[in-house]
Amino acid sequence: MAEYKVLDKKVIKLSKQIVQMCTAAGSGHPSSSLALVHITTALMYRIMNYDPENPWNTASDRLVLSEGHAVPVIYAAYCDLGGVVGTPERPSKLRFEDAMTLREADSVLDGHPNPAVGFPFFDAATGSLGQGLSVAAGLAAAARLDGCDKRIYCIIGDGEAREGQISEALDFIIDNKLTNVIPIFSANGQGQSDYVSPQQSVDVLTKKLQAFGYDVKVIDGHNWDDIFDALAAKAKSAPIAVIAKTIKGWGVSEFLSSNYHGKPLPAAKMDQAMADLDAKSEELGVKDASDVPGINVTKPEPIARPTVKSIDAGSFTAALEVLGMKDALDKKKLSTRRAYGVALAACGAADQRVVATDGDVQGSTFTNIFAQRFPDRYFEAKIAEQNMISFASGLSAGGRVVFASSFAKFLIRACDQIEMASNSCANIKLVGSHSGVSLAADGPSQMGLCDLAFMRSFARSTRPDGAPALHVLCPSDAVSAFKLTELAANTPGMCYIRTHRPDVDFIYEETETFTPGGFKHLIDGEDICIVASGYMVHLAKKACKLLEDAGLSASLVDAYAMPLKTEEILRIGDDCRGQILVVEDNYVGAFGDEIASAAACSDLGVTVRCMNVQRVPKSAKTPEDIIKMVNLTPTDIAKTAQQMFDKSE
Amino acid sequence: MAEYKVLDKKVIKLSKQIVQMCTAAGSGHPSSSLALVHITTALMYRIMNYDPENPWNTASDRLVLSEGHAVPVIYAAYCDLGGVVGTPERPSKLRFEDAMTLREADSVLDGHPNPAVGFPFFDAATGSLGQGLSVAAGLAAAARLDGCDKRIYCIIGDGEAREGQISEALDFIIDNKLTNVIPIFSANGQGQSDYVSPQQSVDVLTKKLQAFGYDVKVIDGHNWDDIFDALAAKAKSAPIAVIAKTIKGWGVSEFLSSNYHGKPLPAAKMDQAMADLDAKSEELGVKDASDVPGINVTKPEPIARPTVKSIDAGSFTAALEVLGMKDALDKKKLSTRRAYGVALAACGAADQRVVATDGDVQGSTFTNIFAQRFPDRYFEAKIAEQNMISFASGLSAGGRVVFASSFAKFLIRACDQIEMASNSCANIKLVGSHSGVSLAADGPSQMGLCDLAFMRSFARSTRPDGAPALHVLCPSDAVSAFKLTELAANTPGMCYIRTHRPDVDFIYEETETFTPGGFKHLIDGEDICIVASGYMVHLAKKACKLLEDAGLSASLVDAYAMPLKTEEILRIGDDCRGQILVVEDNYVGAFGDEIASAAACSDLGVTVRCMNVQRVPKSAKTPEDIIKMVNLTPTDIAKTAQQMFDKSE
Repeated sequence: MAEYKVLDKKVIKLSKQIVQMCTAAGSGHPSSSLALVHITTALMYRIMNYDPENPWNTASDRLVLSEGHAVPVIYAAYCDLGGVVGTPERPSKLRFEDAMTLREADSVLDGHPNPAVGFPFFDAATGSLGQGLSVAAGLAAAARLDGCDKRIYCIIGDGEAREGQISEALDFIIDNKLTNVIPIFSANGQGQSDYVSPQQSVDVLTKKLQAFGYDVKVIDGHNWDDIFDALAAKAKSAPIAVIAKTIKGWGVSEFLSSNYHGKPLPAAKMDQAMADLDAKSEELGVKDASDVPGINVTKPEPIARPTVKSIDAGSFTAALEVLGMKDALDKKKLSTRRAYGVALAACGAADQRVVATDGDVQGSTFTNIFAQRFPDRYFEAKIAEQNMISFASGLSAGGRVVFASSFAKFLIRACDQIEMASNSCANIKLVGSHSGVSLAADGPSQMGLCDLAFMRSFARSTRPDGAPALHVLCPSDAVSAFKLTELAANTPGMCYIRTHRPDVDFIYEETETFTPGGFKHLIDGEDICIVASGYMVHLAKKACKLLEDAGLSASLVDAYAMPLKTEEILRIGDDCRGQILVVEDNYVGAFGDEIASAAACSDLGVTVRCMNVQRVPKSAKTPEDIIKMVNLTPTDIAKTAQQMFDKSE
Repeated sequence: MAEYKVLDKKVIKLSKQIVQMCTAAGSGHPSSSLALVHITTALMYRIMNYDPENPWNTASDRLVLSEGHAVPVIYAAYCDLGGVVGTPERPSKLRFEDAMTLREADSVLDGHPNPAVGFPFFDAATGSLGQGLSVAAGLAAAARLDGCDKRIYCIIGDGEAREGQISEALDFIIDNKLTNVIPIFSANGQGQSDYVSPQQSVDVLTKKLQAFGYDVKVIDGHNWDDIFDALAAKAKSAPIAVIAKTIKGWGVSEFLSSNYHGKPLPAAKMDQAMADLDAKSEELGVKDASDVPGINVTKPEPIARPTVKSIDAGSFTAALEVLGMKDALDKKKLSTRRAYGVALAACGAADQRVVATDGDVQGSTFTNIFAQRFPDRYFEAKIAEQNMISFASGLSAGGRVVFASSFAKFLIRACDQIEMASNSCANIKLVGSHSGVSLAADGPSQMGLCDLAFMRSFARSTRPDGAPALHVLCPSDAVSAFKLTELAANTPGMCYIRTHRPDVDFIYEETETFTPGGFKHLIDGEDICIVASGYMVHLAKKACKLLEDAGLSASLVDAYAMPLKTEEILRIGDDCRGQILVVEDNYVGAFGDEIASAAACSDLGVTVRCMNVQRVPKSAKTPEDIIKMVNLTPTDIAKTAQQMFDKSE
């Protein structure tokens, strides 16, 4: 009881700070924060084993705030605790009053949780709803690989529980027996624009969670006995899920008068709010208690993680030999997706930090090679791509180099999750197979066509450290697929490797090297420069042959990366009568624009034309058929090149 | 019993055709198709009320094949039934042997279901998994608006049931009491790369569906009694959900020997497969029965839909007056998002085909104005954007003009669903609010930054009728927001309207007109041309003032649409010393590239530079603060413009 008085006092202090910091910020979600003030206080001052002075402690329990808009409650507590922010190299300690910097441009207290802006208490950016439980699953899986039994608490709003990704994560946690994840649903019945659906009521949510296989504990989210019983409990066979009945705007009469969402208290009402909380304080019998030491938790001993070193995949030949695939070397022909699978396994053999996940298509992406060799480091995500990506983000925060693979088309389904992972500076290598149109027979529902436009928008924006928010890597043959996979493994942050379905001839020798932003000048001509990437390099090569037969000498560039070193490519174009033709097997927005936008503001006066997929494709039986359908045959390419040459005469 | 014999005979006939058509195509999913052969036969020959000779009959029961890869079974049956394909203007009747054209480039039998290629039996493209049940909900909601009690069957794979969107749709159907939707889960326990998770087993699926609120019927998917009892049953208070235990590869020994997914039978094994099915036929006692008339269903009387006419939203003044918002006219200031809300309500008043859906942010997108005036035509999708978009696709297929609104950031969460809706040529107006950085304080987890790169990739690809797969419309002020909303309502197909949070000054008079692909030449200068859209027009206008003060005469173009008429803009740039500066509040891939890619292959030799968001933003308190953070202030713009001018001297 005396213990509870201490906590009650803390709750009042934090509640006041929450209301004030949001009003000072001029925006924010104080009512959602107050709903969590008891749960947060219990977790951060008593239950979690962690160290606010070392948020990078690898053995710490973690808290994922999936309903990110409620973050002021965490900030208030963490400031009160003198929590450390910044980076391990440049740490700094918060003070209680720092909470008042909420949402300022130079504050680490961002509008929604984000470790990448310098708030390492969190492991991933949240705020776009429904993603936190998947992140928590990733952290738990990483902990298991660490041999660490730390616990991952995840707070989810009841309205947020409607997001399908939550169901995906609930299934995944059961499949993988991740009993150290404790989902806590804050059930206050109020959404942004209306009341929460009966489908997310405490009763229905309880039934659903039980059907999913959880040991459900329904508690009063403002009652200490309930909170400690539920959150300190250890799971038996089934994972625990907690449904906490909470009051949105707890303690402040103005917030309780209606559905008060996402608005700070008007300054004029501040006195009343403070009086409300003082009255609460009196009611709880803690008004006159003296201040008390805050935290009382166990600081765990950090767990050693695998050493960070460069990942050496070895030679392509050796990797193929290990897998009994030497015939590919003889034929000099293999698909980029299969070469990726070979490279992934080689990276996995080289470094145990390398882990992989895939969405029920491991036989098509060739992640299956890794899965068979390293079953402990392979996570089958089933047909649920959104969970897969946010799970990968959690794994990455747990110190892993994560390869997440699916069809390019289906990865894009998780584009919001990819953006949030990018905002988190997660270390994920996305690998999209069956990209472009060469998949042919299955039709556009399986083709990655807008993938590059989406990915490029991140490739051209920068993270806080100045690096690209995402690197795009497009192998054209098996050798480059192998090497670019190794490059991705060694490039910190987000990468997107784009592979294709068909077997293609080798273009490169094993001695070739590849770099971020790079390209290869495959053929040195002088009449026109053709730039291609991935599968299209092979068609462009044939087009060069056709042009040669017609007496034209074409340069051929394999542009395998974005952001691309466009200046050098423009110079090659300049040497080719100022004519560049870019050919792509996707919708607009990728390499063509990358080069055209550079040309349009360059002094060289280079002409850039782009041939890409300009119609929604349909099925065709073979890659040749569909390439014809979208007017990208070698003949089409050669014809356009000839026209450009003729015009340049 | 005699009836069942007839159906058994049909099953054998269709099964043979399924195996043969996939082998002829050289790809496809015969085993998944055979799992559904009894259910499909029962539905298409007996249970559904529809007319294969008129697939556009508005009163017909519908079948949504969510697990689209199993489509050969539908094609086989529809060809057998002489079903009509093509368009109402150019219908044509299939013959049994047309099934053998599966996946050919000029066949309407695409690799996965798609009405847009000329197979109107379906209402939306499927094949990217997990989307069909939402489409079915949309068809059911449209039927309710029609006053029609038709039934919508939806077949979902058990592995597919893992997609979170299925959970979202299950909730939505209960919330909206759409008891005419009958989800049928095909439970054969086999996924693509492995067995289906125990979380999607018949037992757990049953418990989950019951927890969601369904009346669950578990049946043998190859037993006629079971099938007819379950699928012909009428729902009482709770919607019915059927779990059909099916056999993947039913009847063909080769398919049953292992997990056989997504591969046709090798030609060498065809004789054995036919022998297997003949043996089955004998076992069922139908080998020697003579052929029988196929279908025995009720052809419903078509329901009249609201007349298709041009939607007239009236004047902006009148629309504001109706809503008691005339003060905006006096202030000449209003946010584009609120003007959209006004326009939506005006369109809704003008035409009852107009319907709206929103993901729990109606108070922020201002869809709430419509919701309050037309509650029967408003569908609250809650926090579940993927279901919202596919639901919209179904509503659209049911003859509605659908406005689907959320934050731009959250709409992008459904980008795969948007692509599938676009592939279906759905008539959806996506409206993304709080786009760009001007949202400021909430930070990047709520900002639409990559939205335009994604949307543009569709704007520049074409549908089968040659129209853009999507129109992007970016209003800069309240008047243009009103007018562009009306334009979207009258533009068939997919549109994306991008609105902003802050209140902004009026730029246009009510007399102004707007067209697809258009732009407005707001200021006619001669030293440099600045192109902006949306919120950035206001900052660009200020930059022009700064330049004017510095003695420079700048042209200002409000580019409000993609695909954009770039030629005319290049000509304006040509008149401005050949200098164009594009300013954007998003990541790369939008208007800058639209104009630069045109410039790079134009003879005019215009220089195009683009200023956009080149770093991942964080929170800042005000739009001004964040615009400064991303270097897009009027001063920044004027400075770059001056540099361009100086260089052009």
